[in-house]
Amino acid sequence: MVIRTPEEFGKTGINVRIRTRVEGVDPGKGEVLLSEGSRLPYDILVMATGAEAVRLRVPGSDLEGVFVLRNLTDALRLKSFIGEKGCRKAVLIGGGYIAMEMCEALRNLGLETTVMVRRTRPVMRWDAEFAKMILEELEKNGVRFLPETRPAAVEEGKGSRLRLITDKGELDTDLILMGVGARQNTALAESIGLTLGESGAIKVDARQRTSRDGVYAVGDCCEAFHRVTGRWVYMPLGDIANKQGRIAGQNIGGYPSEFPGIVGAQCFKVFNLEVGATGLTEEEALQCGFQPVSAMIWGLPVGRPMSRGERLGVKLVADKNTGKLLGGQCIGEKGAVQRINSLSVALFAGMTIDEVGYLDLAYAPPFGGAWDAIHVAAQNLGKKL
Amino acid sequence: MVIRTPEEFGKTGINVRIRTRVEGVDPGKGEVLLSEGSRLPYDILVMATGAEAVRLRVPGSDLEGVFVLRNLTDALRLKSFIGEKGCRKAVLIGGGYIAMEMCEALRNLGLETTVMVRRTRPVMRWDAEFAKMILEELEKNGVRFLPETRPAAVEEGKGSRLRLITDKGELDTDLILMGVGARQNTALAESIGLTLGESGAIKVDARQRTSRDGVYAVGDCCEAFHRVTGRWVYMPLGDIANKQGRIAGQNIGGYPSEFPGIVGAQCFKVFNLEVGATGLTEEEALQCGFQPVSAMIWGLPVGRPMSRGERLGVKLVADKNTGKLLGGQCIGEKGAVQRINSLSVALFAGMTIDEVGYLDLAYAPPFGGAWDAIHVAAQNLGKKL
Repeated sequence: MVIRTPEEFGKTGINVRIRTRVEGVDPGKGEVLLSEGSRLPYDILVMATGAEAVRLRVPGSDLEGVFVLRNLTDALRLKSFIGEKGCRKAVLIGGGYIAMEMCEALRNLGLETTVMVRRTRPVMRWDAEFAKMILEELEKNGVRFLPETRPAAVEEGKGSRLRLITDKGELDTDLILMGVGARQNTALAESIGLTLGESGAIKVDARQRTSRDGVYAVGDCCEAFHRVTGRWVYMPLGDIANKQGRIAGQNIGGYPSEFPGIVGAQCFKVFNLEVGATGLTEEEALQCGFQPVSAMIWGLPVGRPMSRGERLGVKLVADKNTGKLLGGQCIGEKGAVQRINSLSVALFAGMTIDEVGYLDLAYAPPFGGAWDAIHVAAQNLGKKL
Repeated sequence: MVIRTPEEFGKTGINVRIRTRVEGVDPGKGEVLLSEGSRLPYDILVMATGAEAVRLRVPGSDLEGVFVLRNLTDALRLKSFIGEKGCRKAVLIGGGYIAMEMCEALRNLGLETTVMVRRTRPVMRWDAEFAKMILEELEKNGVRFLPETRPAAVEEGKGSRLRLITDKGELDTDLILMGVGARQNTALAESIGLTLGESGAIKVDARQRTSRDGVYAVGDCCEAFHRVTGRWVYMPLGDIANKQGRIAGQNIGGYPSEFPGIVGAQCFKVFNLEVGATGLTEEEALQCGFQPVSAMIWGLPVGRPMSRGERLGVKLVADKNTGKLLGGQCIGEKGAVQRINSLSVALFAGMTIDEVGYLDLAYAPPFGGAWDAIHVAAQNLGKKL
């Protein structure tokens, strides 16, 4: 049964209050203070306060037409605005997932689209070589890319609705979407003294328990255990949030369960390109005390006789000391996310590069070569260890 | 450098003799006896004699127009025959990979195509529920399917080139392709007394050494270690053969290496359907002394908002005693092989169903839900353990 409304929840014995803000928590009495003025008693409290989109504080950033994108309401608001105001031009500030995924949506709506980033390339987690392929894909689809550009201010425009002032000049646009990251909502947690982790998000244990008895935290407001580094990190991704919620529910329901943690698997699609990564980059590996060694190959997502020229880039990172796989990146028209998932399971299990080089993967020419691109990359990397 | 001709091999210092049959081996002297009459000395001998396609011995099975398909020569011969004789009808005997893959090729060439099997469904490794989806795909693409039918004889035809007599009636056809399995070539191995395994294929160790010093075996003539069962099995697949060849080469070259074994990953494409399996079926699990429990779900290969109605079937098998994953099967228009590969890595690592239920897989709506079909299947199965 899929539950969609408060009434449907009511029938399950679960009381849902919508349009109600929790203004405070009284942990001594075991009560939450609601915006409507009443108090609600609790035995168990679950912090699922999520994160909010970062909005750059430049002059004019609160003008109509400047958006962030965090939830469904944001998306509907943006979509209505484009239709109602007859927008023709959009600027995306930031080169992360929001920008990569939204530039496709905006181009499909026919908008002239510009992606503007502080650094030299988008999605810094991926190798510069892979970023080139992403930039080619943006160009092929008519997206303008402005590297090393910072926004300074937003003003009312003349021909267009807005004018974006940057350190490199000015841009006329009808809307601006800021995709510059998310920040955990911890005000309520801090108000009752919950311990935060080094990342600034709520510290939890493998059962999603916080520092205070009877208080759990799940999702984008809390940390997760990274199996590759053995550290607690902040990685606000929807699939992780779902898993943490389930673990907390099991523990609360009397079925002790531990969240085994994450390996940093992530992906996005930009036009016809699949882009995925898992584990650590070389930079992260260094910071965590590993001795990273890497290899990158361009292979095929299908068997050679079936190839129509699609490329598949695979980069692997391993630790010189232990021979263990530390991370992977893949990019290509197809098959990139599939490889990232195989590598993610290998990371989850703590495999060595030697093992990855001989993984038993299902072979048939429509899906890869007898030696998969993963094998080739792992064997190349193995020679450097 | 890709080496394609004997001359190119010669330049590498490797002597390749084509159109030369090894008639015998004299292990005492360390010599092989060649078909041209000469003898060739060796220090190390590698048996890579492969397998051959099984040809059903029914009357008329040697008539022109009755084919097996094992190598490139077979394929070229079949293709020429179709063109030169203007074939319009084909019958595929057997419901394995050869039949599944060839019926697409034959339909693309415009032939009326019939698949005929002894049992009730094709590719018995897959659940009956999944076989239904395969049969729908065959039907949708105009392939006729005849279950529980056995060939009795082949005769010269009248309107068509051949007439196939079966226990259920007669079929007019221009060609018959037998895809009823492969059998290891071990005559040479047996002639020098190499030990064979229970499967009948050459027994090897993890370094691909046979029972005789200095003699290795690799590929479709020898066994492979199955990590899930801990037994040596015969699974003549191209990717396994490649891996074994590399392992033998490393050991011969003075770099001791062990083949970590297989988990039984396999897949094929039939028209627009991806079909994959890994590990054990319930039947195999029972035979190997496990207590198999299974769960099957129909999920989506993409996030719900992106779905165009594609289905993704996932079946998992686990052992009730240990909670370990034993095998998986997937089917669907897309994403099936990707899931099989993730499951294959999980099998390779010996993961439990609980671990599979919380694997960190890369999530974005074009590639799956926040809970992937794998997670849902594993969690359903977990409840039965």
